[in-house]
Amino acid sequence: MTAPDGNIKALTFDVFGTVVDWRSSIIREMQAFGRDKKIDVDWIAFTDAWRGLYQPAMSKVRDGTLGWTRLDVLHRMNLDQLVQQFNITGLSEAELRHINRVWHRLAPWPDVVAGLSRLKKKFILATLSNGNIALMVNLAKHARLPWDVILGAEVAGHYKPQPQAYLNAADMLDLNPGQCMMVAAHNSDLVAARSCGLQTAFIARPDEYGPQQTTDQQAEHDFTYIADDFIELAEKLGC
Amino acid sequence: MTAPDGNIKALTFDVFGTVVDWRSSIIREMQAFGRDKKIDVDWIAFTDAWRGLYQPAMSKVRDGTLGWTRLDVLHRMNLDQLVQQFNITGLSEAELRHINRVWHRLAPWPDVVAGLSRLKKKFILATLSNGNIALMVNLAKHARLPWDVILGAEVAGHYKPQPQAYLNAADMLDLNPGQCMMVAAHNSDLVAARSCGLQTAFIARPDEYGPQQTTDQQAEHDFTYIADDFIELAEKLGC
Repeated sequence: MTAPDGNIKALTFDVFGTVVDWRSSIIREMQAFGRDKKIDVDWIAFTDAWRGLYQPAMSKVRDGTLGWTRLDVLHRMNLDQLVQQFNITGLSEAELRHINRVWHRLAPWPDVVAGLSRLKKKFILATLSNGNIALMVNLAKHARLPWDVILGAEVAGHYKPQPQAYLNAADMLDLNPGQCMMVAAHNSDLVAARSCGLQTAFIARPDEYGPQQTTDQQAEHDFTYIADDFIELAEKLGC
Repeated sequence: MTAPDGNIKALTFDVFGTVVDWRSSIIREMQAFGRDKKIDVDWIAFTDAWRGLYQPAMSKVRDGTLGWTRLDVLHRMNLDQLVQQFNITGLSEAELRHINRVWHRLAPWPDVVAGLSRLKKKFILATLSNGNIALMVNLAKHARLPWDVILGAEVAGHYKPQPQAYLNAADMLDLNPGQCMMVAAHNSDLVAARSCGLQTAFIARPDEYGPQQTTDQQAEHDFTYIADDFIELAEKLGC
């Protein structure tokens, strides 16, 4: 591992997958919804398909095909497509809106709240997610995530891994990129952050995509820190 | 008082004067600094003069004379002017930078932390200040202010009382203006928020500007709530 420079002031967090277990949360809630409404759908496939449309939707914003569009709206465009694809009928607008906001009601991984509470004593804790501000705020209220500040895509007007997303977070905190450390469960996010000068911490979330997951099983690069969870990260950072 | 619509989801807070006692905090720290450095200045007059340059500096941004400039930078421009005006010599760049960041180290009014902790259980707590994000984050760490989200001038790119500052906060929370309530100790701030459709709560801070203060002694308009402090506001809101 690269020697840390000892000057870290802020930790900037990826959220989906790193902080919250989006997949199990959505599957659980949609299965309950399906039972209640007697809608027979493979909700595991539905959830994976929804997440599968995530990067393509943001790519349209990144390449300018679509003007700036917040993630709640992209999620809804993708949901509308899946409702057709999975032949789900009879949902009201209020139900569709409620389903779309399942992303505001995700559960944290078991180590997260305790780990963040320790890290918060020593560092500024910022979100650096592609989720929009309202989504991040509602998710934090739901999951009791003690952020100091919501930064990321909507504040920057750019989706990760565009460099502006990382550089904006440091700038908004009036810090140099090297005073910030990106915390993520995804090698690609950390590589992009590192190329902007941020320090990096890889957290292993090998089940984020379920038992079949093959990617991001471990750190594939020379990151500043590597930890199994937020508790281990807090220990390594002396919190 | 206007009947509240019962649909308030977020409280948006003015910070300087409403949440923190900027004047006593700065006077106290600057007097200690002066004693330590043997600089004989009327630090009360200095503090009042610094705050006196606040609105004129923002006006230059509001009217376009100056492009978007964050408050830390405006404070520093004003500080440099005062250092000349008060004939203060021999300060290093590091000392000037430290003095300028006294705005990051202000003390809350005595009721604030307990009141916000109660309000946080029921509402989203957002800053809607002219202070920039880094200032608000550092101030919150210093004064233990449990914000859910930092909004306001820098996120909006507009200084209050420009309507965009208020409307941006509601939009970032994906709320209607009427689902937000502006909390402030200044009649003019609340009048501007109300004209944008926000609900309003006046908190009395009759000593913000010291014993000679004559303005904002009480609510001068028909605001949604009027309270002596954050504890009383929490009680009135059923928290």
